[in-house]
Amino acid sequence: MTIKIKFINPFGTPLYNDLITETLTPYLRSGSELAVANTTNCPENIDYYYSKHLIEVAVFEEVIKAESEGFDAAIVGCCYDPGVRVARELVDIPVVGPLEATMQYAPYYGHDYVLVTDHHKAVPYLRDLVRLYGQDVNCRDVSSINWFVSDMIKDTDSVAADAIKAAERAMLDRGAEAAILGCTIISASYERWVRHSGEKRNLAILNPNIFALKMAESLADLKKQGAYQISRSGYYQPLQQHNPREYADLRERFARKSA
Amino acid sequence: MTIKIKFINPFGTPLYNDLITETLTPYLRSGSELAVANTTNCPENIDYYYSKHLIEVAVFEEVIKAESEGFDAAIVGCCYDPGVRVARELVDIPVVGPLEATMQYAPYYGHDYVLVTDHHKAVPYLRDLVRLYGQDVNCRDVSSINWFVSDMIKDTDSVAADAIKAAERAMLDRGAEAAILGCTIISASYERWVRHSGEKRNLAILNPNIFALKMAESLADLKKQGAYQISRSGYYQPLQQHNPREYADLRERFARKSA
Amino acid sequence: MTIKIKFINPFGTPLYNDLITETLTPYLRSGSELAVANTTNCPENIDYYYSKHLIEVAVFEEVIKAESEGFDAAIVGCCYDPGVRVARELVDIPVVGPLEATMQYAPYYGHDYVLVTDHHKAVPYLRDLVRLYGQDVNCRDVSSINWFVSDMIKDTDSVAADAIKAAERAMLDRGAEAAILGCTIISASYERWVRHSGEKRNLAILNPNIFALKMAESLADLKKQGAYQISRSGYYQPLQQHNPREYADLRERFARKSA
Amino acid sequence: MTIKIKFINPFGTPLYNDLITETLTPYLRSGSELAVANTTNCPENIDYYYSKHLIEVAVFEEVIKAESEGFDAAIVGCCYDPGVRVARELVDIPVVGPLEATMQYAPYYGHDYVLVTDHHKAVPYLRDLVRLYGQDVNCRDVSSINWFVSDMIKDTDSVAADAIKAAERAMLDRGAEAAILGCTIISASYERWVRHSGEKRNLAILNPNIFALKMAESLADLKKQGAYQISRSGYYQPLQQHNPREYADLRERFARKSA
Amino acid sequence: MTIKIKFINPFGTPLYNDLITETLTPYLRSGSELAVANTTNCPENIDYYYSKHLIEVAVFEEVIKAESEGFDAAIVGCCYDPGVRVARELVDIPVVGPLEATMQYAPYYGHDYVLVTDHHKAVPYLRDLVRLYGQDVNCRDVSSINWFVSDMIKDTDSVAADAIKAAERAMLDRGAEAAILGCTIISASYERWVRHSGEKRNLAILNPNIFALKMAESLADLKKQGAYQISRSGYYQPLQQHNPREYADLRERFARKSA
Amino acid sequence: MTIKIKFINPFGTPLYNDLITETLTPYLRSGSELAVANTTNCPENIDYYYSKHLIEVAVFEEVIKAESEGFDAAIVGCCYDPGVRVARELVDIPVVGPLEATMQYAPYYGHDYVLVTDHHKAVPYLRDLVRLYGQDVNCRDVSSINWFVSDMIKDTDSVAADAIKAAERAMLDRGAEAAILGCTIISASYERWVRHSGEKRNLAILNPNIFALKMAESLADLKKQGAYQISRSGYYQPLQQHNPREYADLRERFARKSA
Repeated sequence: MTIKIKFINPFGTPLYNDLITETLTPYLRSGSELAVANTTNCPENIDYYYSKHLIEVAVFEEVIKAESEGFDAAIVGCCYDPGVRVARELVDIPVVGPLEATMQYAPYYGHDYVLVTDHHKAVPYLRDLVRLYGQDVNCRDVSSINWFVSDMIKDTDSVAADAIKAAERAMLDRGAEAAILGCTIISASYERWVRHSGEKRNLAILNPNIFALKMAESLADLKKQGAYQISRSGYYQPLQQHNPREYADLRERFARKSA
Repeated sequence: MTIKIKFINPFGTPLYNDLITETLTPYLRSGSELAVANTTNCPENIDYYYSKHLIEVAVFEEVIKAESEGFDAAIVGCCYDPGVRVARELVDIPVVGPLEATMQYAPYYGHDYVLVTDHHKAVPYLRDLVRLYGQDVNCRDVSSINWFVSDMIKDTDSVAADAIKAAERAMLDRGAEAAILGCTIISASYERWVRHSGEKRNLAILNPNIFALKMAESLADLKKQGAYQISRSGYYQPLQQHNPREYADLRERFARKSA
Repeated sequence: MTIKIKFINPFGTPLYNDLITETLTPYLRSGSELAVANTTNCPENIDYYYSKHLIEVAVFEEVIKAESEGFDAAIVGCCYDPGVRVARELVDIPVVGPLEATMQYAPYYGHDYVLVTDHHKAVPYLRDLVRLYGQDVNCRDVSSINWFVSDMIKDTDSVAADAIKAAERAMLDRGAEAAILGCTIISASYERWVRHSGEKRNLAILNPNIFALKMAESLADLKKQGAYQISRSGYYQPLQQHNPREYADLRERFARKSA
Repeated sequence: MTIKIKFINPFGTPLYNDLITETLTPYLRSGSELAVANTTNCPENIDYYYSKHLIEVAVFEEVIKAESEGFDAAIVGCCYDPGVRVARELVDIPVVGPLEATMQYAPYYGHDYVLVTDHHKAVPYLRDLVRLYGQDVNCRDVSSINWFVSDMIKDTDSVAADAIKAAERAMLDRGAEAAILGCTIISASYERWVRHSGEKRNLAILNPNIFALKMAESLADLKKQGAYQISRSGYYQPLQQHNPREYADLRERFARKSA
Repeated sequence: MTIKIKFINPFGTPLYNDLITETLTPYLRSGSELAVANTTNCPENIDYYYSKHLIEVAVFEEVIKAESEGFDAAIVGCCYDPGVRVARELVDIPVVGPLEATMQYAPYYGHDYVLVTDHHKAVPYLRDLVRLYGQDVNCRDVSSINWFVSDMIKDTDSVAADAIKAAERAMLDRGAEAAILGCTIISASYERWVRHSGEKRNLAILNPNIFALKMAESLADLKKQGAYQISRSGYYQPLQQHNPREYADLRERFARKSA
Repeated sequence: MTIKIKFINPFGTPLYNDLITETLTPYLRSGSELAVANTTNCPENIDYYYSKHLIEVAVFEEVIKAESEGFDAAIVGCCYDPGVRVARELVDIPVVGPLEATMQYAPYYGHDYVLVTDHHKAVPYLRDLVRLYGQDVNCRDVSSINWFVSDMIKDTDSVAADAIKAAERAMLDRGAEAAILGCTIISASYERWVRHSGEKRNLAILNPNIFALKMAESLADLKKQGAYQISRSGYYQPLQQHNPREYADLRERFARKSA
């Protein structure tokens, strides 16, 4: 039973694909296949919310395409978990957000955690996600290291160094036992550094890409085994269930060309 | 000092504009002007989240246009408060969501409230907004009356009757003192019925359109008086502050034509 | 349609009336009238809770008088929101507390806020109000600048300087985007300084007097338009509805002479 | 070591004193003395919040008098816990509120509880106290039996019957393990019925008068043993610590005559 | 890479092993091996908390044994998640509790959930776990079907029927989108019924055994890949890190014989 | 009416008994008797959770023995409140945990508190108890002084000095009005120092042993007066009520010899 996972970099550029492939492939379980792709015809930076919103439109297309290509699960590769909940309305394969998945795995790594993200624009947004996901009791702080992804890709080692320092300080300051790196590119930079440097990994610093992969693998299993389908009674009910013709018209009129 | 308010019906059709104009105009204060408009080139129904997301892209265009046309404040006319927070990143005029505004006025109407919305798809979404807005302590229930707006417009009196019944029952069942009608078209239907029937209004049943208007008027005042500007330090920092060229490019490439 | 607002300084002295009048008048919208008055025959300082309780008895008289004089709304001018909820039981005009009103406007100014109040006695009391108003999710801190109002009035510029410094530090320390000055006299001092100094106002520092005024204006509008009446089903049910004779006797026996 | 406890009926009438004395005396521990008194020169009914506020002024006088008479602790006999927190600012003896005390003892009687109070006016007020005392996690419901104390005293057996029925139904409906009778006169009526009828007491139905007494006794012990003094650093700091002259003047001008 | 999972039935009897093996084996992914075992020399029923506590002592032995036998992860097979957190202090393989794991997977199945457990003794205990795990925002109710496991094993079809009925009613009553069967034997009974009856599975009814398995598989993967180790800084720090000799003595004196 | 209280040191050694007796006896009320005992045949240190779990088995035996010896209430002398909730299932006398009791008394000492405990292992555990007891709103911080009880007993004055310093700093840093010493041996060390040194006690620093004693005394009173019995409907229902034979068998097989 082979499981095929699509990791969608929401950034509208292939610039980050190799970094993700390089740092995530070692964590594939045997029998899993990973394809890393990116959105197209949309902004390259997701930091600001208007950009994020436009990118999410492209994410929906990629998720729909992933399903039609036969992938068993899709990951949207950014810790804003961009478009994840809406995408679940659109497809029957599991759609995984790295931040949410990591929060779900975090209790296996320690009593509580801090969240260390990229920059000041993400801090209040992640605070909202913490609240929305019901994680206030486990998340003891949200802070940032002041990097944007377009700079990170040029110097991943400095990103890793800053992230480690910030994570360790935040854990100490807040008495937390783990740290989630709340940005997929910070996480990949950290992962690359661990693998290149030969330094011992701080196992309390959590890389969301890995947890998104593990969650996607296990949900894909469940789907193949007939034990997964998201409830279609409300929050995730698709328009086609309510009015198939309206949905068809909508797609006809508004589906973006993602090529 | 005249205040100009733009009420943007997010539904991509002029179908609801008259109903809103008719039922909201009586609440304009002297010196205020109201323009009711709608989005274009986007879905007509906002109920499902993919549709909502596409509509929000059009909402951003309408909000930007409202600012450039010289309006002093904009209301996005739907209780999903669609695109409201993102729109605040884009313009300097206040952007008001009817649900949020009504929750802010609710304490003047009673100790706590129930929320009565249109259909099953909105219930969990509004529960998320209740949580995100920090209203768990004041909102004692969210329920729905099973109507879609495209049906409502054909029989506003029946909508009003169902809404009153549901609101009164929910207040009784949960021991709440007020009821927010969590849908702008339900609210307008209720308002029309009150005005046509000559029946006494139940002042504990709250019409979000009115509160959105009042909040918009007062924020527009503040703006004119030099006492309003949203903080640009993080959550509402615009891309143009961080990288003006990137924002210009983005608009160049992605601004939808809303005519 | 003229709106008449009564701002009641709860301090039993006219000492603060001019400062409020001076700093609030610029924010009146056209068509509004403001009268600033004070309680009489009660303590001059509200800091300690026994004093506050006695002052509140006088506040009730002033609110009742404001209604009988034809005011359309009343503001109780202190961030303890003293007597506000009880006063709503007594009159049909809207009664506005500056702290509550400012918390309602705060989301238009930033993602979250800190509260900076006068002295150590107010800090735990405001924490209680934060909890009671359901604001725990938006308010990231409560701190004080160690001033009492009887000293403030003698040196409003120093108060302003201390408040600005404390507000900016608290926003930075807690990663908050706005600061509410949780004392009406601090706020007025800050306002006066802004106007006198010609310095640019920090628009993220919120003056509760202004928001109380805006809220009062809009509620007064609604009242004139037939769209305001507080629910009389429970929390705000008046004694006269339950037992008019008992209420009449009570007033006969206990109404304080406020002249 | 004799402990002297003053139970202050806040109702401005001696009408309820015998009922309290009769039903509370059996729970005095050996060596304790109980005096039941009432406020004077204030309203007789505390249900409405304006009345409550006036009564609280009289409560402060009674609490001050209790301390000067040498009592070791005071109980304010109403489940609004009227004036309790303010009174703690005024005296050095412990001041106990029946509702708060019962919530503190409740975990020894079951996993969680419901609150059954007198009438609709008390329900939202007690909900506020639940929130303020931090009891949301333990209190599963607040409801009422629609009785006013002035009627209760005429037919205590009917009150007891209604209270038992309501408490048992609420425990069943909400899956709670105990019920607090949130009114001192309901509780006393229930207690009288238990003692007169010879019926077996339902030990999951909690009488706040008893818990107030037990808490008062134990705090009085601590005080005699040198292990009790409320922190005077903020919330309970008295005015006389900040400005003794101002306090003396205040008492000179505003102390009510309670004879 | 083969993954070996030990499922420990905490009940001190082999009576439930076959049911678990039969209903869980179909969900093993290829390359996983499952061993179902039970504790010995301890109570057979875990319902009452004293029994549970004694059983947990035996669970610790089984978890230690599982690690020494080379298993890659251990599941403690009961929705009390008995001994799970303590066991994590003792071993380096992941220890999974079915309830916690299911709550982590639940967001992929719907917006929120109800919890349906076996009997009245489990209801308040699961409420505590809901609070402790920070799930108050997602869990809308806890109820029970009044069955004990020793009866369930004799009539698994009736258990399944009762569980389905209760789950569907609770979802409807509370407006929840999924239901967690909060008992491993109810869940296995439900699973057996689904497989025997050929009826279509209600995919919104969640079987914790499956989610515990999936979580255990993915954590075992991570462990093999060098990406798993629970933080040893505090909550999960083992005694042997603080004082190896004391731990050795403790095991010498108190290790139970589990044969 | 004499009240007999058993204080059970959970540590399996008599080493701490004298310190507790010496520092608690002064707070006995007249007519109370105190017996301090310890568990036997179990670990001496409770810090790590496996040790704690084994100790709790011994605690159950001591609590059962206390009841059979005629004690009116039992205190389990450690701020983990070890085994307290399970023990309540087993006996009909009240079982008191020092941490829970102190949280119940804390509102009489100040508006809120910090918790200062022994070492890093206790901090996250006490955070869980804070959450479980519903104390998040009152407890502003949990920190530790890095002492283990086996060292404390050798130098109680240094423990007292460190505890006072840490408590005062934590109160200052967090703006809290009281500090609970979250460890019975820290508390006893502090108490001894107060009594030996003749220094003035800081009455805002709370010693849990004293509050456990006061709570136990008052519950013992209630029990003697026929007004105490824990609800046996669920959380605290004993196995013997459900199946007496099973309970008898269990005790036959698993009761530890505590001599």
